[in-house]
Amino acid sequence: MKSIPDHLQQLQGKSVDQIETPALVIDLDAMDRNVQRMAEFARKHRVRWRPHAKLHKSADIAHLLEQAGACGHCVQKLSEAEALAVLGVNNLFISNEIIAPTKLRRVAQLGAMLDARGGRLALAVDSEIGIELLALAVLEMSSGPLIDVFVEVDVGQGRCGVPPGEAALELARLITGHPQLRFAGLHAYHGSAQHLRGVGERHQAIARVIEEVRRTCDLITAAGIPVPLVTGSGTGTLIHEAASGVYGELQAGSFLFMDADYARNEREPAQPAFEHALFVKAQVISSSGRHAVCDAGHKSHAIESGLPAVHGQGDATRLRFANGGDEHGILHPDNADGRLPALGSTVWLIPGHCDPTVNLHDYLIGVRGGLDGGLVESIIRVDARGALR
Amino acid sequence: MKSIPDHLQQLQGKSVDQIETPALVIDLDAMDRNVQRMAEFARKHRVRWRPHAKLHKSADIAHLLEQAGACGHCVQKLSEAEALAVLGVNNLFISNEIIAPTKLRRVAQLGAMLDARGGRLALAVDSEIGIELLALAVLEMSSGPLIDVFVEVDVGQGRCGVPPGEAALELARLITGHPQLRFAGLHAYHGSAQHLRGVGERHQAIARVIEEVRRTCDLITAAGIPVPLVTGSGTGTLIHEAASGVYGELQAGSFLFMDADYARNEREPAQPAFEHALFVKAQVISSSGRHAVCDAGHKSHAIESGLPAVHGQGDATRLRFANGGDEHGILHPDNADGRLPALGSTVWLIPGHCDPTVNLHDYLIGVRGGLDGGLVESIIRVDARGALR
Repeated sequence: MKSIPDHLQQLQGKSVDQIETPALVIDLDAMDRNVQRMAEFARKHRVRWRPHAKLHKSADIAHLLEQAGACGHCVQKLSEAEALAVLGVNNLFISNEIIAPTKLRRVAQLGAMLDARGGRLALAVDSEIGIELLALAVLEMSSGPLIDVFVEVDVGQGRCGVPPGEAALELARLITGHPQLRFAGLHAYHGSAQHLRGVGERHQAIARVIEEVRRTCDLITAAGIPVPLVTGSGTGTLIHEAASGVYGELQAGSFLFMDADYARNEREPAQPAFEHALFVKAQVISSSGRHAVCDAGHKSHAIESGLPAVHGQGDATRLRFANGGDEHGILHPDNADGRLPALGSTVWLIPGHCDPTVNLHDYLIGVRGGLDGGLVESIIRVDARGALR
Repeated sequence: MKSIPDHLQQLQGKSVDQIETPALVIDLDAMDRNVQRMAEFARKHRVRWRPHAKLHKSADIAHLLEQAGACGHCVQKLSEAEALAVLGVNNLFISNEIIAPTKLRRVAQLGAMLDARGGRLALAVDSEIGIELLALAVLEMSSGPLIDVFVEVDVGQGRCGVPPGEAALELARLITGHPQLRFAGLHAYHGSAQHLRGVGERHQAIARVIEEVRRTCDLITAAGIPVPLVTGSGTGTLIHEAASGVYGELQAGSFLFMDADYARNEREPAQPAFEHALFVKAQVISSSGRHAVCDAGHKSHAIESGLPAVHGQGDATRLRFANGGDEHGILHPDNADGRLPALGSTVWLIPGHCDPTVNLHDYLIGVRGGLDGGLVESIIRVDARGALR
């Protein structure tokens, strides 16, 4: 476990003003409200929620989510699972394929470790080879654990997963032939549907997903294999999967922090009113009179889903963020009088995409009482930062 | 200093095949050849070279560059300078503006530390406030160091820096009024010119830069203030600054590793033949038959300057990398027979942009003897990874 450096430890209890820039700051009040909204939503729809930890990569946040009702956590990589498991996170689903035998041996070891603590490890598969190599890795252990295996179905993302229907049944059958593996159901996630802007587009995309998933479940069940669970969904479409009667578990993670990309989605009334809780605090370090420059570039925030929005500007001082490279952001006046922030002043940015932004930082700075005048309450370690393997 | 984890320590001496994916791999033979080419180029043109450490962020690499003749290192952030200084790097230029008084106090402390070791710290400025606050921070120390101060001139980048001419002279004059500061010259870097594709475009852009810099130097000299040095340039344009008779120091850093973005530049015969030395090793984890999916996405490599190129494919097996999100890359066949790599096979990627790619990783894996059949020689710590402040 990384220890928190002294200068960050000493920030606790201090004013927001004392946070050095650039820094990734969590509005803890907004985050807590997002968690409550998600918990309430899941209770109302009687679905489990297993938020995706690829967003926050933090054991502290994972525990907080469990206390609010999360049934476990998704991760995208084995090393993420290992980093969280070592800090007491017990129920983990690696919602991704693993093929390397050395990694599958570590999957079996991690499964045994979680088993012994009353937890459980799950993995997604989309190939016969993947299933056979996993089964072999578990068999090689003297007392191998029981691993939950989800068949990943490609429901429109066009990435991993077998097509809905027969191909999924074949893999389910193969899994049930291995006593050391448990067929846990289907993993069906349509990532690109999360960011379709219109309410109607998202509804339509997920209606097709639900139809394909239902047909696949029926096919597998008809072959005598029960489908214990369908898991998937994200922050953009969760109202549809939750109401489907087919999905039993939601994997949404971004609801916790939100980002500028999600803010561009048309809201639907049924959707919980998630708020921005993730900000880059930046400082103006240069001003030409025509533009200002802040000290946050794309080493501070990911820009692959768009540039950050500038937060909390009054009407008279709107600013537009333009790409200034790795370490700088260019601030253009977006107002009639062309006013620019003074040298040394603070600018708050809403990152374009939350997940890869968090992955740039070793620590999140948790603030209570608002960005304007609040206090630093906690320093949150990004335990699985850079855990790519 | 971070200690290198056991599983990476144990990789040393092992085959490239045993590197787990995704991993950032340095072809050490190619890197060494790039260093030799750069050293020879600088000798031939009688210019100093102070390669930018924002690329590699590694004290080991900084020492290696010094041994080859580098006169020191540029960094972009104070915390980068601190991370390298603590590991014995003595000559550092923070080629960026710093405004926060808390940081300027650390600048003074770092300057004193380097002074005491026979090294030197330099900083860029582009405002009166920046100079006054820096001077104050140095004065506050009982025996403050002498800080080298470069006036940053905006020569076309449109980011930080004062306009060429009068404005630069005013700041130079202000610096010479502070005995604790030494006017070290001009910092004039045209970042976007590095990536102009055509030979002629780059030549033209830098011809204008040189003219503006020369005019500014003449103006300052005519006012009785000597201009000890003009520093700037990058991997894309260094032949022009080196031949200018105005620039005395080259800041190019990317030559060390190169990237897919630089590979898109039209080569000019005078330019040293820098080779790709930085690769992401990835593995195929899924295949639909129409496309394959590898385990490296934009948490493994920066994509803001374009997607990675697939390296070392024979004619029959060309692949095109498409964005698969944070953790995946989609591989499309780009060949007549549509052949795809098998599940489990290795794919080598050339990142779009070297600097922010290195910043995603805690360690670089140094390979000797080529990517195909070579051995792991060293694990290189990215000491200043995430050093944003």
